[in-house]
Amino acid sequence: MKIAIVFGGVSFEHEISIVSSIAMKDVLNNELVYLFLDASRDLYHIPSDTINSKLFSTGNYKKFDKVYFQKNGFYKKGGLFSKDKDIDFDVVLNLSHGGDGEDGILSSVLDFYDIPFIAPRTEACVVSSNKFLTKGYATSVKVNTLDYKYYTKGEIVCVDSFPVILKPVKLGSSIGVSIVKTQEELEYALDVAYEFDNAVIIEPFISGVKEYNLAGTKIDGKFRFSIIEEPQKAEFLDFDKKYLDFSRTSKALEVDLGEKLNNEIKDSFKRIYNTLFEGSIIRCDFFVVDDKVYLNEINSIPGSMANYLFEDFSNLFNDLASNLPSKKHIPINYEYVNKIQASKGK
Amino acid sequence: MKIAIVFGGVSFEHEISIVSSIAMKDVLNNELVYLFLDASRDLYHIPSDTINSKLFSTGNYKKFDKVYFQKNGFYKKGGLFSKDKDIDFDVVLNLSHGGDGEDGILSSVLDFYDIPFIAPRTEACVVSSNKFLTKGYATSVKVNTLDYKYYTKGEIVCVDSFPVILKPVKLGSSIGVSIVKTQEELEYALDVAYEFDNAVIIEPFISGVKEYNLAGTKIDGKFRFSIIEEPQKAEFLDFDKKYLDFSRTSKALEVDLGEKLNNEIKDSFKRIYNTLFEGSIIRCDFFVVDDKVYLNEINSIPGSMANYLFEDFSNLFNDLASNLPSKKHIPINYEYVNKIQASKGK
Repeated sequence: MKIAIVFGGVSFEHEISIVSSIAMKDVLNNELVYLFLDASRDLYHIPSDTINSKLFSTGNYKKFDKVYFQKNGFYKKGGLFSKDKDIDFDVVLNLSHGGDGEDGILSSVLDFYDIPFIAPRTEACVVSSNKFLTKGYATSVKVNTLDYKYYTKGEIVCVDSFPVILKPVKLGSSIGVSIVKTQEELEYALDVAYEFDNAVIIEPFISGVKEYNLAGTKIDGKFRFSIIEEPQKAEFLDFDKKYLDFSRTSKALEVDLGEKLNNEIKDSFKRIYNTLFEGSIIRCDFFVVDDKVYLNEINSIPGSMANYLFEDFSNLFNDLASNLPSKKHIPINYEYVNKIQASKGK
Repeated sequence: MKIAIVFGGVSFEHEISIVSSIAMKDVLNNELVYLFLDASRDLYHIPSDTINSKLFSTGNYKKFDKVYFQKNGFYKKGGLFSKDKDIDFDVVLNLSHGGDGEDGILSSVLDFYDIPFIAPRTEACVVSSNKFLTKGYATSVKVNTLDYKYYTKGEIVCVDSFPVILKPVKLGSSIGVSIVKTQEELEYALDVAYEFDNAVIIEPFISGVKEYNLAGTKIDGKFRFSIIEEPQKAEFLDFDKKYLDFSRTSKALEVDLGEKLNNEIKDSFKRIYNTLFEGSIIRCDFFVVDDKVYLNEINSIPGSMANYLFEDFSNLFNDLASNLPSKKHIPINYEYVNKIQASKGK
C-alpha cells in the first residue's frame, strides 16, 4: 500500500510536522509519497529519497513540483502540450500537526475531494483541538477532566487559588502555556496566551501529577491499544522537549498500574474514541490523582503517530489503512423541487 | 459588494439550499454570483438571471461553466490557448444547508483557500450540526437544554418514560426524527434514525411546548438581534413545512414575552454565539418550559438566512460582509530545524 503523507501546513507546529513525517521512513514499511503544504498553503511533491529537514528551512522544496487537490487525489499541472498528471497513492496520512491538520481544515478538504485518509474526521478534529470543547465532550461521554474556567479575551479573570496552569484554548505542544503561581504573574501569562488565541482555559496546577499516555485505534469495531507509558516529565513539557518526541522511534517502556487503573484508562480511551474518532490513531494523555483517572488531552495526530508505544505499529497502520470508515451515501433527488414545479404548472 | 452564493452540496438538504439561495434575490440588494455544488461536488457557475429550481432537477445546470477552488477564489479553466479565468466576487455566502455547508466541510475548504465567507467557521459548524456536541457546548457556556440520552448504533436503548423525541445526531430539518409514544414504536423509530446516522439522541417530548426563534449576529463586537418569533407549529415541523420556510421572505410577527424572558432568550443567544460563531448569522430555537429558557437547536445556516426575522436584513448582511473576523497570523519559521542542522554540523 502506497501512503501519501500530507504534512506542514499553516500551524505553530509546522516544523514538528516535518520531523514527524521524516520519522515515518523508519517506522512504516510502505512506499511513501511526501506532499508538503507550505506557509502559503501551496502543496509540493517532495521525492522521498531526497527529503530532509533542511530542504524546508532553506526554501529549496520550491524546486519540486507543485501539486493541486482534485477529486479522489492530487495532480500536477502539465505544460501547454502535456496532460495534467495524477499522483499515484492509495491512502493519505494526514501528519500536519496543530493547525490545518488537527483543527479539521485539512481533514475537511480531504473529505471534500473524496480522498481516503488516516486522521480524525472533521468533528473529531474540532473536539480534540479545542480544549474547551474537549472538556464538554469528555463530560458528555462520562470521562473525568480537571475543573477549569474558560475565558475569552477582554473578560475579567478571577483565580481563587494558585498555582494554576493557563492554556490558550487551541494550541498544542505547550505553546503559550504558563504555570501561574501568583496574581502578579497572571496578567503576563494572559498576555502570552492571548498572543496565540482569543480564549483560554485555566486549571489547577498539580505539581508532580502522575501522567500516563495511551494510544490506540478502532479497526473493524475492535479497539487496538498501545502499551501505557509514563512519559518522562519536567514540570511540564516545553516545546523543545516535546519537539524531540516527534522524531521518536525507539520503543517506550510499559508501565503497569494494576488491573483497576489499567482498565479505567482503557475504558476512558474507549469512551473518548467512541465512533467519533474512527479512521484515526490517537494518543490520550491522562492524569491520575488519588487513584482517579482524568483526561488531560487528546492528541488527534500524535507526534510520529505515537509509533513508539505500539508493539507492531507498521502492521496496525496497514490494518487501519485497509479498513477506513465508509461514508454514508446521501441520495440527492429533486422530489420537492419537482413538486413545486408541478404545482406551478397547474 | 458582490456576493458569491455557494449552495447545493452533498446533503439531505441539497434541495432546500437551492430554494434558499434563489430567495436571496428578493432579499439582498447585492450583485449575486451563483456557484452550485452538485451531488458529485462539481462546482458550476449559474448565471443569476437564468437561475430557477428546474435547472437543477433536470440536470441542465451542467451546460454552464465548471468552476474550481483556488487560493483566494474560484477559476474557470481556459482552453488550450486561453488563460484560466477568475470569478469576480468580494465575499462568499455559504448557503449549503445540512451536510457540506453546515457540518464544517465547506467552511474548512473556504478557509483553506483563504476565501472570505459568511457562515460559521469550522468549529462552530461542528458544534451546531451535531446535536450531541451542541448539548455539551450549551452546558459549557451555561445555557439550559432538555435532558437527553445519547446512543450509538448497536447500543441497547432504554427509555423510562414516553413520549420521547428521537433524533439522528447530525441532520437538520426534521429528517429521520420521530415522536415515540410506546415501546413498540421505539424499534421502528431507531431503524429510521439509523438510516441517516450512526448515533441518536433521545429527549422527553413535551406536547405543545412553546418555541421561540431568535436570529442574530455579532458585528465589531456588538450583537445585532432580530425580533423574537413564535413560529407556527404542527406537532413538530416536518420536512414539507420546513421546506416552505426556506423560501420565506415576508416579515415575521414579533412576540413579546416580557422583559425577563426576552432578556433570557437574548442572553442565551449571546452565550451560544460567544466568539465561536463570529462571521455568521445564526438562528437559535428555544423552548420555554415553566418560565425557563432551553436551547432546542442552533441553525448555523438558517433557511433563507432567517431574513424574515430582521427589520433590515440587507443592511445587516452588508455590515457583516464588510466586518468579517480576521485570522490570527501564524508565523512559520524554521528555528528548530535550523537548530538540529547546526548541531549536526558540529
